[in-house]
Amino acid sequence: MSNVDLLGRRKFIAGLGVAAGAAMVAPAMAVSEKADGVKWDKEVEVVIIGSGFAGLAAAIEATKLGAKDVHIFEKMSYFGGNSAINGGLFAAPGTPMQKKENVDDSVERMVNDQLASGRGIADEGLLRHVASHALEALQMTLDAGSEYHPYLQQLGGHSVARTYQTTVSCGAGITQPLYKECKRIGVNTHNRSKFEGFLVGKDGKVVGVKMRTNYHFNEDQPGEVLNIRAKKGVIMATGGFGQNVDLRMAQDPTLTAEVGCTNAPGATGEGMFEMFRLGAIPVHLAHIQSGPWASPDEGGFGYVSNYSIYNFPHSMAVNRLTGKRFMNEIADRKTRADAELSCRNEKGEALPPILITSYKDSKKHPNTKKVIKYNVGWKFDTIEELAKHFDVPLKPLKAQIEEYNSYVKSGEDKQFGKNMTKAKDKYIEAPFTVVRLWPKVHYCQGGVQVNVKAEVKDSFTGKSIPGLYAAGEVCGGIHGVSRLGSCSIPECMVMGMTAARSIMKA
Amino acid sequence: MSNVDLLGRRKFIAGLGVAAGAAMVAPAMAVSEKADGVKWDKEVEVVIIGSGFAGLAAAIEATKLGAKDVHIFEKMSYFGGNSAINGGLFAAPGTPMQKKENVDDSVERMVNDQLASGRGIADEGLLRHVASHALEALQMTLDAGSEYHPYLQQLGGHSVARTYQTTVSCGAGITQPLYKECKRIGVNTHNRSKFEGFLVGKDGKVVGVKMRTNYHFNEDQPGEVLNIRAKKGVIMATGGFGQNVDLRMAQDPTLTAEVGCTNAPGATGEGMFEMFRLGAIPVHLAHIQSGPWASPDEGGFGYVSNYSIYNFPHSMAVNRLTGKRFMNEIADRKTRADAELSCRNEKGEALPPILITSYKDSKKHPNTKKVIKYNVGWKFDTIEELAKHFDVPLKPLKAQIEEYNSYVKSGEDKQFGKNMTKAKDKYIEAPFTVVRLWPKVHYCQGGVQVNVKAEVKDSFTGKSIPGLYAAGEVCGGIHGVSRLGSCSIPECMVMGMTAARSIMKA
Repeated sequence: MSNVDLLGRRKFIAGLGVAAGAAMVAPAMAVSEKADGVKWDKEVEVVIIGSGFAGLAAAIEATKLGAKDVHIFEKMSYFGGNSAINGGLFAAPGTPMQKKENVDDSVERMVNDQLASGRGIADEGLLRHVASHALEALQMTLDAGSEYHPYLQQLGGHSVARTYQTTVSCGAGITQPLYKECKRIGVNTHNRSKFEGFLVGKDGKVVGVKMRTNYHFNEDQPGEVLNIRAKKGVIMATGGFGQNVDLRMAQDPTLTAEVGCTNAPGATGEGMFEMFRLGAIPVHLAHIQSGPWASPDEGGFGYVSNYSIYNFPHSMAVNRLTGKRFMNEIADRKTRADAELSCRNEKGEALPPILITSYKDSKKHPNTKKVIKYNVGWKFDTIEELAKHFDVPLKPLKAQIEEYNSYVKSGEDKQFGKNMTKAKDKYIEAPFTVVRLWPKVHYCQGGVQVNVKAEVKDSFTGKSIPGLYAAGEVCGGIHGVSRLGSCSIPECMVMGMTAARSIMKA
Repeated sequence: MSNVDLLGRRKFIAGLGVAAGAAMVAPAMAVSEKADGVKWDKEVEVVIIGSGFAGLAAAIEATKLGAKDVHIFEKMSYFGGNSAINGGLFAAPGTPMQKKENVDDSVERMVNDQLASGRGIADEGLLRHVASHALEALQMTLDAGSEYHPYLQQLGGHSVARTYQTTVSCGAGITQPLYKECKRIGVNTHNRSKFEGFLVGKDGKVVGVKMRTNYHFNEDQPGEVLNIRAKKGVIMATGGFGQNVDLRMAQDPTLTAEVGCTNAPGATGEGMFEMFRLGAIPVHLAHIQSGPWASPDEGGFGYVSNYSIYNFPHSMAVNRLTGKRFMNEIADRKTRADAELSCRNEKGEALPPILITSYKDSKKHPNTKKVIKYNVGWKFDTIEELAKHFDVPLKPLKAQIEEYNSYVKSGEDKQFGKNMTKAKDKYIEAPFTVVRLWPKVHYCQGGVQVNVKAEVKDSFTGKSIPGLYAAGEVCGGIHGVSRLGSCSIPECMVMGMTAARSIMKA
C-alpha cells in the first residue's frame, strides 16, 4: 500500500465549490405499489425515466425498432440531465479517425485498458458489450447531427488515442442533437415530471410508474401524481447520485457538502434507490470517482477540466512544496486524484498542485483564453515569475523541467512511465500557461446490477425483474473501482440502445 | 498505486475449498407487506432475527432492561450463527489484562488504528461508540462464563496488544455462554425459523415479521409462515453474505464458488436485502474482506487461521519464488491479503507463500500439534529440508533469515517496518514449523447504514425507519475498506446491546 492510501488521502479541501444539492429538500417519499385495481391515468408503450445520453438513445432506438408511443420523463425543467454538462468525450475502438491517424486499436484493447483501471472488479462482459457497440452509438450521434473536433485525444489510462470530443467540448453537443432527433421522430417528452415509484403487477412485473407532474426541483410544491401504464416496460436512465450529499457521505464521510462536484443538481439518485426497494442489487456504491482534472478556483466542471484533459499529455504536474512532478499526468483518474490529494504543505493542509504547459501548445485549446480571462489559469513569461506566483522552489523546478524535457526528447518518462507519444516535440518552455488542480466528485461507479440485456437482477430470485430495464450511470459494477474518462458516453448510449432492443423483443 | 493493485491481484486460486453455500437453493421470495388487517399469529415484545454475538447480546441486554418477552429467531438448526465458528478474538482498550501487562491503550488509540485500516472511509462516530463500550461487552461475556487465554495478542494493524481470545480459540467460547445465559433469564429461542419479510404499519413503522417455521436450510420444504407482532420493535442481527456466491460475485467477479470462505453456510444475506427493500441505505458492499491468515490446504477457517494469527508477530512470511519476505506480517488484513495474492510463479499462477516460525515459539499454541497432525503444517529440522520441500531458493532464504534475525535483535524491521515488540528474543531458528498462506473470503464490511443508536436510516427521508434496529455484520460502513482483526466481536456485541437499549427506550 502506498502512502496516499492512508487516512490523509481522502481529505478534500473544504470550501472549494459547494455541492449544488447541499440544501436539498428531502425528496418526496417514493413507494412502489401493487397495481391491482389501480386507476390508470394514461397508457403508453415505453416509459423512459431520465433524458441524458441513456434515455435519449433508448428512445431513438425503440422508435427505430417500431415503437409508436415512447415517452421520456425528466424531473428538471430542462432536458439532457447531467449528460448535457459533461465533457462531451466519446471513446470508441476502430473509428474512422483512428484509421486516418493509423491508431492500432480494438475492442479487446479498449476492454483491457478499462479492466486495468477497474482494478480487478470491473464487469468484463458488460465492458465488452459496450466496446463492441460503441461505433454504432457514435454513428447514432453523427446521424443526429453531433459534430466532433477533427482530432483524437488520448485520455488518462487509455493505451491509445481513441477519444472523440464534441466541437462544443461539452455533452450538450450530443444531447441536443439526440433530443431534436427524438422530437423529429415523434418521441413524447415531459419535463418537470418526477418519478415517484413503480406500479407492480403479478409475479413482480413492473407494469407502470407513478409520475408527479408540474414538479419543481428543490421546492415543496408537488403537482398531481399520475398512474402511467407502460405496456412494454420501463427503462430507468436516472443517472448517478453525486449531488446527494447524504448518500455520498454514507459511502465516504469525507465527501461533505463543501467538496466540489461537477454534476448537474438533479443527480440525486432517487431512481436507483427505488430500484433497490424493488429488489435490485446494489453494486460498488462505495466507489465514487473524483475528477483529477478539476480546478479549485472555479465551481463545477468549469473551464479548467476540459483545458487540462486536453493538455495533460504534453504538460507537467508539479507539487508546489517540492517543485517536482508527483504523478504520471495520463494515469487513470483514481491514481491521479489520489496523488493530487497527497499534495499538502508541512501542516498537512491541501496544497493544490499546478499543471504547467507551454503556452504555444496550450493555446490550441479553445478554453485557454477563457481560463486566463476568468483568472482560473495564468500566463507567465518566465519560470521565475511562475515560481514566485505559486511559491514553488525555483531550483528544483528548473531541474524538473530540464529532466522532463529530456523525456520529451527520448520518448521515455523515467520518473512515472508516462506514455510520451502525444508529447512528441512539445518541450516545456516559456511562456507558460498554468492551472491549479484538485479533485471534484464526478461519477458514481456504483448503482444497480444489470446484465448485457440491460435487465435488472432481483437479489432474492437471481432472475431479472420483469418489465424493468436500466441504463447509464444508475447502473453499477461495469467499470469497477475507477472508470476511464470518455467511457461513460459510450456506456450510456450502448446500454440505452440495448434496453430499447430488449424491451422491443420482450 | 503499487503493482498489487493491478488486475492480477484479485485472482484467487480456484479449487481451494468450495464455498459451502455454492449449491444453495434460491431463498424463498421474501416480501414485506403492509400490516393493515393482517391476522397476527403471535404477539411478542422484542423480535431478534439471528443468534450470533449481536442477537444474543441484544437479548440479554433487553431482558436486563426489563423486557419480559424477548424472542430470538434463528434460521439454522443450531444457534450461534457464523459467530460460533469465528476465531473468538475480542479487542478492547483499557482491559484488566492490559493493565497487568502495562500496555498503554485508550479508546482513541483503538479508534485511530481502525481509522487507518479503514483508509479514510470508516465511520469514526460508530468506531468510537463501539470502542467506548467494548469493556462492558467483554464484561457481559465474562459474566456469562466465557473464559479467555491468560495472555493478550497483538493482531495485524493494532498498535498495541489489546486482543483477548477464548480458551477454545473460537467464537463458540462466547456464543455458548451467552446462549445459556439467554435461556437462564428466560429469553425465548426458536431455531429453523426463517425471516420472510417485515410487516409494516402506519408511517412505514416496522410492527412485525413474517417467520417461516420448520425451515430446513438449502432444502425445498417450507413450513408454515406466521405473522408475529413485535410490540417494541425488531432487531436485525442476521450477519454477512460471504456465503452468497451470486451476491459476492456481484461485488467482485473473482469471488467465485471456487474461492475459499471461512463463513458458516447460513451467511447468505437475505435479512440485509430485505432491509434494502424497505429503504435502508447500502454502504460499502464492495468491500469484502479476505483473511490473510488462512491456508489453502484445508477448508474454511480450519486450524491454520488461529495458528498463524498467534504466530505472525514472531514469524517470517516468505515468497517461495524469491526466498524473501514480501510483507509486514502484522500489517492490516487487506494489506497482507493483497500482498499474498501477488505471490505468483513465472506464469502468474498462484504460489501460496509460507509462514516460517521457530518450532519452540509456535508450539505454545494449541493448534500447532493439530496443523502438523492433519498435514496442513509441517515441521522441519533443517533449513535445507524446508527449502527443498517448498522449492525455495536456499541462499536468499538463508540470507533473509539472517537479516530478519538482525531485526529481532535491534527491534527495528528495516524491510517492512513491522512492530518487533512481540518478536523480542524470538529468533527464527531450527527446527521450524511452516504453514502455507492464501486469503479466503472472511467478512463483509458492507451492509445497511446505522447510527450510534443502531437505528436504520431510510434512503429517501434520511430519518430512521421506525421500529427497526440492526446490529453486527449486517450493518455496513463502520470499518471502511478493511476491518481490523478482533474488532468484529466488540462491534457485534456493543451494537446488539445498543439496539436493545434503543428499543427499550422507544
